[in-house]
Amino acid sequence: MQPNTFGNLLALTTFGESHGPAMGAVIDGFPAGVEVDLQRDIQPHLNRRRPGQSKLTTSRSEGDRAEILSGVFEGKTIGSPIAVIVWNKNARSEDYDPNYYRAGHADRTWEEKFGHRDYRGGGRASGRETVSRVIGGSFARLLLPEEVSIVGFTRRIGEHVAEDIPDELTIDDVDAHPTRCPDAAVADEITETLKRCKQEGDSRGGVIELWVDGLDPGLGDPVFRKMKNRLADAFMSIGAVVGTGLGDAPAAAKARGAEFHTGIAGSGPDAGISPAAQGIQGGITNGRRICMRVYFKPASTVGSMAKKGRHDPCIVPRAIPVVEAMAALVLADHVLARRLDR
Amino acid sequence: MQPNTFGNLLALTTFGESHGPAMGAVIDGFPAGVEVDLQRDIQPHLNRRRPGQSKLTTSRSEGDRAEILSGVFEGKTIGSPIAVIVWNKNARSEDYDPNYYRAGHADRTWEEKFGHRDYRGGGRASGRETVSRVIGGSFARLLLPEEVSIVGFTRRIGEHVAEDIPDELTIDDVDAHPTRCPDAAVADEITETLKRCKQEGDSRGGVIELWVDGLDPGLGDPVFRKMKNRLADAFMSIGAVVGTGLGDAPAAAKARGAEFHTGIAGSGPDAGISPAAQGIQGGITNGRRICMRVYFKPASTVGSMAKKGRHDPCIVPRAIPVVEAMAALVLADHVLARRLDR
Amino acid sequence: MQPNTFGNLLALTTFGESHGPAMGAVIDGFPAGVEVDLQRDIQPHLNRRRPGQSKLTTSRSEGDRAEILSGVFEGKTIGSPIAVIVWNKNARSEDYDPNYYRAGHADRTWEEKFGHRDYRGGGRASGRETVSRVIGGSFARLLLPEEVSIVGFTRRIGEHVAEDIPDELTIDDVDAHPTRCPDAAVADEITETLKRCKQEGDSRGGVIELWVDGLDPGLGDPVFRKMKNRLADAFMSIGAVVGTGLGDAPAAAKARGAEFHTGIAGSGPDAGISPAAQGIQGGITNGRRICMRVYFKPASTVGSMAKKGRHDPCIVPRAIPVVEAMAALVLADHVLARRLDR
Amino acid sequence: MQPNTFGNLLALTTFGESHGPAMGAVIDGFPAGVEVDLQRDIQPHLNRRRPGQSKLTTSRSEGDRAEILSGVFEGKTIGSPIAVIVWNKNARSEDYDPNYYRAGHADRTWEEKFGHRDYRGGGRASGRETVSRVIGGSFARLLLPEEVSIVGFTRRIGEHVAEDIPDELTIDDVDAHPTRCPDAAVADEITETLKRCKQEGDSRGGVIELWVDGLDPGLGDPVFRKMKNRLADAFMSIGAVVGTGLGDAPAAAKARGAEFHTGIAGSGPDAGISPAAQGIQGGITNGRRICMRVYFKPASTVGSMAKKGRHDPCIVPRAIPVVEAMAALVLADHVLARRLDR
Repeated sequence: MQPNTFGNLLALTTFGESHGPAMGAVIDGFPAGVEVDLQRDIQPHLNRRRPGQSKLTTSRSEGDRAEILSGVFEGKTIGSPIAVIVWNKNARSEDYDPNYYRAGHADRTWEEKFGHRDYRGGGRASGRETVSRVIGGSFARLLLPEEVSIVGFTRRIGEHVAEDIPDELTIDDVDAHPTRCPDAAVADEITETLKRCKQEGDSRGGVIELWVDGLDPGLGDPVFRKMKNRLADAFMSIGAVVGTGLGDAPAAAKARGAEFHTGIAGSGPDAGISPAAQGIQGGITNGRRICMRVYFKPASTVGSMAKKGRHDPCIVPRAIPVVEAMAALVLADHVLARRLDR
Repeated sequence: MQPNTFGNLLALTTFGESHGPAMGAVIDGFPAGVEVDLQRDIQPHLNRRRPGQSKLTTSRSEGDRAEILSGVFEGKTIGSPIAVIVWNKNARSEDYDPNYYRAGHADRTWEEKFGHRDYRGGGRASGRETVSRVIGGSFARLLLPEEVSIVGFTRRIGEHVAEDIPDELTIDDVDAHPTRCPDAAVADEITETLKRCKQEGDSRGGVIELWVDGLDPGLGDPVFRKMKNRLADAFMSIGAVVGTGLGDAPAAAKARGAEFHTGIAGSGPDAGISPAAQGIQGGITNGRRICMRVYFKPASTVGSMAKKGRHDPCIVPRAIPVVEAMAALVLADHVLARRLDR
Repeated sequence: MQPNTFGNLLALTTFGESHGPAMGAVIDGFPAGVEVDLQRDIQPHLNRRRPGQSKLTTSRSEGDRAEILSGVFEGKTIGSPIAVIVWNKNARSEDYDPNYYRAGHADRTWEEKFGHRDYRGGGRASGRETVSRVIGGSFARLLLPEEVSIVGFTRRIGEHVAEDIPDELTIDDVDAHPTRCPDAAVADEITETLKRCKQEGDSRGGVIELWVDGLDPGLGDPVFRKMKNRLADAFMSIGAVVGTGLGDAPAAAKARGAEFHTGIAGSGPDAGISPAAQGIQGGITNGRRICMRVYFKPASTVGSMAKKGRHDPCIVPRAIPVVEAMAALVLADHVLARRLDR
Repeated sequence: MQPNTFGNLLALTTFGESHGPAMGAVIDGFPAGVEVDLQRDIQPHLNRRRPGQSKLTTSRSEGDRAEILSGVFEGKTIGSPIAVIVWNKNARSEDYDPNYYRAGHADRTWEEKFGHRDYRGGGRASGRETVSRVIGGSFARLLLPEEVSIVGFTRRIGEHVAEDIPDELTIDDVDAHPTRCPDAAVADEITETLKRCKQEGDSRGGVIELWVDGLDPGLGDPVFRKMKNRLADAFMSIGAVVGTGLGDAPAAAKARGAEFHTGIAGSGPDAGISPAAQGIQGGITNGRRICMRVYFKPASTVGSMAKKGRHDPCIVPRAIPVVEAMAALVLADHVLARRLDR
């Protein structure tokens, strides 16, 4: 019963409230002897998540400098739990009213559950909690083979859908545009829409698509720890996420079996591999690309609410490093689990 | 690292392979003093899952009689783990060839992972494993307040979408038609399509929609044990499920925030409750209906594959008790967790 | 919150009540591809635990035949959970009275806790539950390197202390005498005392000493999963155990540091190894013999109680395979954990 | 696989190395709405553990001020994880040599396990890690009913055994003497011995006896979460602990059953309660005092080693708040678990 811990062999525990002293991440189960450089391996991912990166995002700007308290010595992990904190700054808690429940937020339900809560900026329910996840995920990446690439991008924001996507993508490719949409024309449309949202106090949701390439086959555990449900659990634990699926799941649900299943049965080298599987069969990786989509509802703080906090008209671009971080945690957990298979 | 255990305070462990001696379920953490009647409370849910219920489903027919080995005494639970088995019968294992990998199945990936596997009918990766889940879920239902109703129904099969759905539904309403689609006209269309599939060796996927009514507000835990991600984890762990979401998640991702968010902010009795939340805000129930959709790909064994096993052209109708069972497990876990909140 | 599960990477879940249909063990996390022969690897350990082995033990005799329901195929494990049951027979439940609380037993406290209980022969609290542990332990042994030997023996029963013990011992050496005391003269004294106990309705406790040889250094995890506390947890979970310690712990507590600590500090090959450590330093094995003692109170059913059940005057000899099984579970868990260190 | 987490419903995760920036404790599962005052509830227990309290203990003196980073708002818990850190000061890391393995310490075995380690002052294996435990335990105490008292005292140091102990003891009674031995005459003898040890570079172990009074019956879970094995696990996870038992376990192992078991069987109000049970029957509290002993080996750093660190000749007095903290964690976990029984 650790509602603030994610993962099994690699376990991330997060703590901190939006307007408390600090956000934190404790990572247990991290193998010893892994080289870590805070500025090279961790801070860049925090920077990618940080608000205030462009005109499109919230004006709150914390800096978000990670500080390691435990687990790394002489540039390498030592088998101890890794503890990292980020101090909270620039939190104007006087903006918040304890008796004011924002619609669509956790305000009322957390009050219902716990009776007593930190009402400042969502407290523990704030999106700021994802700072800890990004830290955890950036450590998790260090456990993946070098050839593994985890890249998320904006597939959709509101009415705009990216269609012209290259077959290969790097994080740099995606980050080249503030919308993180790799279809340049659509990216421009999104920019226009989000500027208008900001003026009108409106917001948009969207879809992040995640590609994981370079994985070996055999990752994922049977029955209740399938790769697909662990990833779904990871993504759906992010505040604004309302759905997730392998590839285009709604399309799969409409398809005719005879057309959907194009793999070849038998006993040859590729026999049994299905292109429609999006990289996961029976819950276990087949060595091909994992493709998942993550659906976000529109940001719930709109219009006159803006004065009660400083929020983005669309969190999708900033959520990409969070989705990637959660994926990295799941993958690293399974990479460790693979050592126990036989 | 218990890949075969689901849940936390209420923990279901399942065992058994499709063509082994028995399927089993062990439920730990079940409170004492709860009345259980095998024939009244457990067996009916197994019967709802059972193959051979109609012309639309597979011809394999096991009977599937649950037998309690532990945890119930004089008609009540005693705080011990509850163990239930169902013997496997009628399994024609000679149909299976160890060197034949079915496309889109777990055959190849499990081999990759474990080296040695039970190749008969999918072994542990068979849909038959859900027998254990239905047992677990039927016990979990006994921990929910009587006013809680968990009802799943066929929202879509292939090209056919149910639109005309009553506001309230019982399991009996849904089970009135073999397709478990409560829109009678669409149900008939589905029947025709599935008959044709059977003749042509084709298959269809679809969408199950799940409604949970009667829940108190305050269920769900922060951060990594939100109600929504626990349910997503539960559903995505079912073999053929490819996606899930709150209500119509893809539609939410397209919506304008100003239209999507209709809840009222402030401090009145309903302030902060959002109708668009599908019953869950900040990961915690708000006392309204939870509505989730579960997307299934088309059954992967089609055409000439039929001789390698006896399978349904569409598993959606039979999967409804499985989806309900997984939901019941999550809900019961959170109902227990609620006792620890304050 | 799985009070009936022991272990982490290798997780044993037990179920069953003394007078219910069956006792069971489910082992999750067991690697694939390990050869298992029920008659060679599992049944002998059950036989060693079985009552009715000699005049000194209870006359209840079940046979206790293990039956595998899951997880083994073609003589090898397949990565599935391993499920094994032993049917209960010969249980005269009419001997038991629901309103009769035996002194020193769980009868009253379980009633207090759960309200409703299986009062027949202790139900779940019966020593019969250790059948499941012995099954679990016998599988765990298969994960240990061949050179590892786990041998427990009777160090003390009541007033009789074995002093003349060889430096090396096998299970066969120990089992050569029904008391499992390898000091032949003391074994005979014990036999006389226990015969008299049986006549007089008296009982004795004692001390089991456990030797684990052949372990590599580096087993055990920091802080809360030290080898010594996992073993202590394992042993103290056995019903009649009242204490445990490394070597002769009470003697260590009296010793002068200058005499107790004979290891050599520095940087040579043996530097830092302490003979007084009983094989565990900082919670981690040092490659030497682990020696632990397990203290048993006298069996609590004595005198006129005998008619309320059939019990041993001393459970120490029969408890040896149980202590060994619990040790094997802890060791195998740590052998698996070792794969995750770096 | 969280080697640095202890507990189940109430889970303490600790982090930090002796000579790193800070020690930390994260407590998950702590109910909301519990009043906490850092100075009143937490800091005093840290002060009791702190070195430098008397001439008898190490001269290292950190101050050890607890700082709350998460989980407490407006003086009450909020259902979030509670995170507390204590900055490390006064750590002379230049005293330590990476290639020097102290005898009887973790130095060599941790190197063996992890390859790379923080060699300064034991790093993570240092007794300083117990700072985090004392923080965790002081929070756990807040979950216990007010009438529960957890008091540990020095029963033995080296050759000196306290015999004249009052029937009731408070923490203040025990703390009245620096040795924490409530037998005044023996306390004086101990003082003399430890002064001599300091001069001679010698050390002593001893025995802490722990009394828990005021507990309701019904605490403790069946089989693998018995109160006695959870306490044993807790105590044996402390570095210098070599054994533990209920009351005087070695004496119980020698006793005749007819004398040991003085409880009355039958169905009256006290029937089934056994005075010899030390408060725990079948793993569950019977409402009487729990009495356990915890055996400590002599401190392993003696003689010329002193220059490699500043250590106590006997850690037993300072270990009392640590033993109490571990007990509080186990008890609070079971107090929460009691809510799930029926």
